[in-house]
Amino acid sequence: MVNKLIDEGMQAVEEKLHTIVDSDVEVLRDASQHIISSGGKRIRPRLALMAYLAAGGQDFMTAVPMAAALEMVHTATLVHDDINDHSLTRRGKITVHARWGRTFALLAGDYLFTKVYELMAPYGNTYNEIMADACIKLVEGETLQAAVAKAGTMDRETYKTIIARKTASLFEAGANMGARLAGADDELIEALTTYAYNLGLTFQIVDDILDIIGDPEKMGKPIGTDLVQNRGVMAAQNGGTAVIEETTVATAAIDPFKAMMEQLRDSGAVEVARLQAAETARRARLALANIPPSPMRNELESLIDLVLNRDK
Amino acid sequence: MVNKLIDEGMQAVEEKLHTIVDSDVEVLRDASQHIISSGGKRIRPRLALMAYLAAGGQDFMTAVPMAAALEMVHTATLVHDDINDHSLTRRGKITVHARWGRTFALLAGDYLFTKVYELMAPYGNTYNEIMADACIKLVEGETLQAAVAKAGTMDRETYKTIIARKTASLFEAGANMGARLAGADDELIEALTTYAYNLGLTFQIVDDILDIIGDPEKMGKPIGTDLVQNRGVMAAQNGGTAVIEETTVATAAIDPFKAMMEQLRDSGAVEVARLQAAETARRARLALANIPPSPMRNELESLIDLVLNRDK
Repeated sequence: MVNKLIDEGMQAVEEKLHTIVDSDVEVLRDASQHIISSGGKRIRPRLALMAYLAAGGQDFMTAVPMAAALEMVHTATLVHDDINDHSLTRRGKITVHARWGRTFALLAGDYLFTKVYELMAPYGNTYNEIMADACIKLVEGETLQAAVAKAGTMDRETYKTIIARKTASLFEAGANMGARLAGADDELIEALTTYAYNLGLTFQIVDDILDIIGDPEKMGKPIGTDLVQNRGVMAAQNGGTAVIEETTVATAAIDPFKAMMEQLRDSGAVEVARLQAAETARRARLALANIPPSPMRNELESLIDLVLNRDK
Repeated sequence: MVNKLIDEGMQAVEEKLHTIVDSDVEVLRDASQHIISSGGKRIRPRLALMAYLAAGGQDFMTAVPMAAALEMVHTATLVHDDINDHSLTRRGKITVHARWGRTFALLAGDYLFTKVYELMAPYGNTYNEIMADACIKLVEGETLQAAVAKAGTMDRETYKTIIARKTASLFEAGANMGARLAGADDELIEALTTYAYNLGLTFQIVDDILDIIGDPEKMGKPIGTDLVQNRGVMAAQNGGTAVIEETTVATAAIDPFKAMMEQLRDSGAVEVARLQAAETARRARLALANIPPSPMRNELESLIDLVLNRDK
């Protein structure tokens, strides 16, 4: 019953994502459809719909454009990230950047941002303020990440600031808006946003772990990309840079990258990161205790485990 | 009196532009302040304030954040344009792209877009829908321009579509929102938006003419950049590309670019473009005849001449 509602809502989100990128400018339509069709976990819209339903919302279509807007923000940043990272594949498909070139990838990313704006406009002041705030934080988090990676000054504190802004803020905004749309009171909104914020942190830490130990085939993208760019949870634990003893690289004449990855896996850094993820997951679970029991609360609890134990 | 009001309003817009880009992420704040401090004509916010006052608005501070948002959209696109065009100078200063590099320029442009969103959020549904629509059209116009330039298929009809979307739509949105905020009736809104739309077309045609015949020192940027990229009003008149007889290039061994520019200036293409600008200016003037006479209407009329006769 509960799952059927979520599935129906997610189906509507999927349709909204596809129909909203309807430009008569061919390359914008094609590039947008390309990245949207390539799938993805859709966790942000799912979370927003679940918060709406957990807060007693009766008509999920009310929350669908907002949920689609959350995924659209994420999608727009992926297109721009892939330019900056020179990435060739994403979700097992060629990136917009690799297929259409930098100019059109930059414009397609801008176009997807304008579609966020179109999706959100009908919701009025409060919702647009929440979304604007989350978008600002997201760009700040991405920028901070690029700045400390360049300077080689990543540490655990900075890593937390980065993932809070670039990932957790959008999770939080989705739960906040979902709960509000359902008419939740302040206490319920607070519980759901705290849950979502910590779920977002957990999601990002696991994402960074998978960059080290994940299966590239399952993930649909190469691994180790964060590591070689001095960012992510591993860089944070190596005091600024993800450097490896020179001897390791020197003796591994055939594949220094592989050797670096192996040494990192053996260093215990992954285990430390897992402990951090377990801690943020615990906080998410704690926040859930403040909302009344319901089948949807159980689903929100299961979502924590899914995020924590995913392998792609 | 009327001019004093506009000046005060523009002063408030300037302050808003500077205070809104207050990120604690240094590079975002610095890059934003850099491009905002480099000036520019500020014609979009000025037009929006004038439309507000012409429609009888009594408190221009109501329109200031919206006017600042219009300039912010424009500024964001400039930062992204300069990445795609590899431009080194803008308004006589180094570009964000040249100074901070591509990654940070891309993120700074995204950041400025999120600030548009923040500035607009408090205005509610209708205004956000108008702004979202203008932003979508702007990105579509830019993309269409890049697509036809790449394909070498520019013609006069496509040129009109491009400048209508990339420039006139934002002018139109500003006048629309300004008039609405002042409580204008439909007829007055229609007159002011038609005026603004045609003013925007005029502005862009003159901009493209200045790319050919302008004084680089006055403009604060190099000329001929549109031409060599097969776009702008000149390409439109040369049936797809801005190519020049090969002999010209061959004989002008020292500076083929200079020779190309000179031949174009001698070809009469500039004069044809001037006629087009005069025609859109005439339509702007015609639309003004539908609003009641006032000192502000006279100012709107003067603005047409300023746009038409500017040399930078």
